[in-house]
Amino acid sequence: MFTFAHCDPIKNNTDHTGKVSEQLTKREQDYAKWYNDLVLKADLAEHSEVRGCMVIKPHGFAIWEKVQRALDDMFKATGHVNAYFPLFIPRSYFAKEASHVEGFAKECAVVTHYRLKSDPDKGIIVDPEARLEEELIVRPTSETIIWNTYRNWIKSYRDLPLLVNQWANVVRWEMRTRLFLRTSEFLWQEGHTAHATKAEAEEETLRMLDVYARFAEEWLAIPVIKGRKTPGERFAGAVETYCIEALMQDGKALQAGTSHFLGQNFAKAFDVLFTNKENVQEHVWATSWGVSTRLMGALIMTHSDDQGLVLPPRLAPVQVAIVPIAKNGEQLQAIDAYVAPIVKALKDRGVSVKYDNDDKKKPGWKFAEYEFKGYPVRIAVGPRDMENGTVEVARRDTLEKSVMQAQGIAEKVEHLLEAIQDNLYQKALQHREDKTHAVDSYAEFKEAIEKGGFVLAHWDGTQATEDRIKEETKATIRCIPMEGGAKPGKCMVTGAPSAQRVVFARAY
Amino acid sequence: MFTFAHCDPIKNNTDHTGKVSEQLTKREQDYAKWYNDLVLKADLAEHSEVRGCMVIKPHGFAIWEKVQRALDDMFKATGHVNAYFPLFIPRSYFAKEASHVEGFAKECAVVTHYRLKSDPDKGIIVDPEARLEEELIVRPTSETIIWNTYRNWIKSYRDLPLLVNQWANVVRWEMRTRLFLRTSEFLWQEGHTAHATKAEAEEETLRMLDVYARFAEEWLAIPVIKGRKTPGERFAGAVETYCIEALMQDGKALQAGTSHFLGQNFAKAFDVLFTNKENVQEHVWATSWGVSTRLMGALIMTHSDDQGLVLPPRLAPVQVAIVPIAKNGEQLQAIDAYVAPIVKALKDRGVSVKYDNDDKKKPGWKFAEYEFKGYPVRIAVGPRDMENGTVEVARRDTLEKSVMQAQGIAEKVEHLLEAIQDNLYQKALQHREDKTHAVDSYAEFKEAIEKGGFVLAHWDGTQATEDRIKEETKATIRCIPMEGGAKPGKCMVTGAPSAQRVVFARAY
Repeated sequence: MFTFAHCDPIKNNTDHTGKVSEQLTKREQDYAKWYNDLVLKADLAEHSEVRGCMVIKPHGFAIWEKVQRALDDMFKATGHVNAYFPLFIPRSYFAKEASHVEGFAKECAVVTHYRLKSDPDKGIIVDPEARLEEELIVRPTSETIIWNTYRNWIKSYRDLPLLVNQWANVVRWEMRTRLFLRTSEFLWQEGHTAHATKAEAEEETLRMLDVYARFAEEWLAIPVIKGRKTPGERFAGAVETYCIEALMQDGKALQAGTSHFLGQNFAKAFDVLFTNKENVQEHVWATSWGVSTRLMGALIMTHSDDQGLVLPPRLAPVQVAIVPIAKNGEQLQAIDAYVAPIVKALKDRGVSVKYDNDDKKKPGWKFAEYEFKGYPVRIAVGPRDMENGTVEVARRDTLEKSVMQAQGIAEKVEHLLEAIQDNLYQKALQHREDKTHAVDSYAEFKEAIEKGGFVLAHWDGTQATEDRIKEETKATIRCIPMEGGAKPGKCMVTGAPSAQRVVFARAY
Repeated sequence: MFTFAHCDPIKNNTDHTGKVSEQLTKREQDYAKWYNDLVLKADLAEHSEVRGCMVIKPHGFAIWEKVQRALDDMFKATGHVNAYFPLFIPRSYFAKEASHVEGFAKECAVVTHYRLKSDPDKGIIVDPEARLEEELIVRPTSETIIWNTYRNWIKSYRDLPLLVNQWANVVRWEMRTRLFLRTSEFLWQEGHTAHATKAEAEEETLRMLDVYARFAEEWLAIPVIKGRKTPGERFAGAVETYCIEALMQDGKALQAGTSHFLGQNFAKAFDVLFTNKENVQEHVWATSWGVSTRLMGALIMTHSDDQGLVLPPRLAPVQVAIVPIAKNGEQLQAIDAYVAPIVKALKDRGVSVKYDNDDKKKPGWKFAEYEFKGYPVRIAVGPRDMENGTVEVARRDTLEKSVMQAQGIAEKVEHLLEAIQDNLYQKALQHREDKTHAVDSYAEFKEAIEKGGFVLAHWDGTQATEDRIKEETKATIRCIPMEGGAKPGKCMVTGAPSAQRVVFARAY
């Protein structure tokens, strides 16, 4: 859209002569490379030299902070409070819930020593004498340490429900990593609630699934399918796992959040009992639920394009960038004065705005920078605008530009931001609908999976059939959807009865 | 102040028959036990079963969230952005800055393996085959991993200054721990900035020291002394360490925040060079600065009393608790209606308020609970208040109660909250002034240190004298103060010349 002879949009990538988006791999060419390039060039994150761990750079972290704030407000509005539990879990606790440890054992970072020392030959080494009696696991998730703590917090039905969330870093050792999507260390929130009855715990599980779905749709502008996981895809230690599933632009699915009904599994493993109203001791019922920095991957892959990042206005760190186009200092001063009331009017409406009158950078550099980094709206003001009482407004989602009257511009921009938020959601929804197909035969299924997207098909409910499909097509059952009605049919593979169609896709 | 036959103020401590503050150890009796009891009984934090690691409970975490929000706003207002760097640091990076590794080597948690496995005899064990080639240190502070990253971010003077902060957990292995004050894992923020010149980095170091001092005084309501550390007390790897020092009620000092000028030490250790305006390569200048959950300890020990927690209104999770006193459901309904506009008026003024009309708990329980947990203002409303158009207002800091007209109460409460905030600060300041003494002889010094408080005395500037004083009196030099003028004198121990008095105390 913009072309300039000299611009250097990314601070830390030297030797640009064209705009950075021209150096971005096109999605059609290589989607995976496009994604990785974009994350790096838009200064969202990068690989660290520590195997599997990423650095979340300031622009990426500013988006994550917005995600955190919005989710945290939603958790608090549903009665939850935050707390903080230890990073380390003793090996013995971790082993108490059998299926839980089985699920996580292969990806645990283990602390075995607590001191370094200086060695005359080898330099700084781990002090072999400072070995821990019991090894500590760096938490991959906190059910075990939390339920070990809840044992002392819960005595009576009056202590229930206990509705606690934690924002934390967790570690799951990964051999092959991708920025935001799969990293050894990631940031997340994990809710851990305790209830007096099974019904209350089930209700909480679904309440938080709804919170996640609402957040995905209203903030991330990502339509999601809510559903149950099959037994083979359940969280290790859960009785039932629910999830929200989103579809990326390349037709692959991404699990964007999970909410688990844990039954009494952890209460039994950690002896968490309460006295009910009838004065009888019972095991407590549990849920846990989480979303992570993986959401950043979903956000990027849903909306961004070959020109760079596209951000929904509600999560954009800065919603409006204003760029003056001045030939000299005098003109710049005049534009400063012209723009000041616009900035104020936008801020008064709660719009975040950056007026970039740094004269060390050229307008072309700024246009390319703000476009590439996904600022939803860019306003340009030049001498002719001042003469005409106008400004030029560009929206990032459609790349359309238009000249508007400066009078009343704040209100118009506010509406434009809402329109962009809505447009991104509608576009993603349309894409998902275009890429969702119901099929009846396994042959049709294979063909549909090859094309990408969600495929709705009947399945006989067995692990064996699920495994066979996965092996033969690389498609997994994303979920058993909760909406759209359950019409019975016959399994596309075995012909055995099926209660309803389930959602298949290849997935991240 | 309140006595009730039946109240059970702390959910998880069963079998109370009196108010919880009556079970609290008195400060005069055993200050350390008072502190520990209070942290536990006010549901702020508790020891976990993981050695040295604490659980921050919801009430404690809600205060920490307020601290984070206020500090984060101050960091952003001074041009800083947040980012996130890996939890793990490879052993070899850690060893690159010699004095840094020497300072931290003895307290490092070390990850050596990345997998567990099931053993037929021993259950779940660390898989000996999954040994890391290079051990990973759980970050005790992040200078090394961050400066290793900055090498790729900084090429030119145009990339500077780089003003980054991180909110994170860190681990420093401790054998003897105290809740909030000294724990193996703690939460903190660490700022890491990079500058083109020494002067700019020094300016930043002092700017952030000022931010900390302002936060301590305006939010925590804790007066602090700003100063420089002696060489022996410097951060490992720093050229100069600045600090803010506060005085607790028992006369012991507490270091509440530090800001370090790192010179070019880390830039040299990690080869971080930039091209200056004259096109010459130079090493980058650095600062780092941090405050931690230790501030929670300072907050508690500065203001709280034998009746429980006292919180400055600006950091109280809930500022006003309103308790109805009703004999039956009909009365309660009438009070609900009477209180509703008061709640609304308070919220409209930005006051956080909890109207607790839970009829499963008695008013006496609620009064004791809110008093013990430090709610700054409690309002009680009974039938007689409705008749008279009044409410009863109790302030936590002075424990005074008064009957006020309900008309216009929100504005009065808003002013009362400001008055409480100010009163807490003034009280703490008065306490510090009463406990600060200048002495000229070593004999006087020893006597003054024994009584507790800050002692201002001349010191000859040598490590030997500092060590001798520490050994003989357990007092350390808290800082070389920056304010109050530097009048020269003679060292109280050796008689050698001294440029100015320095601040001594026994410290946490």
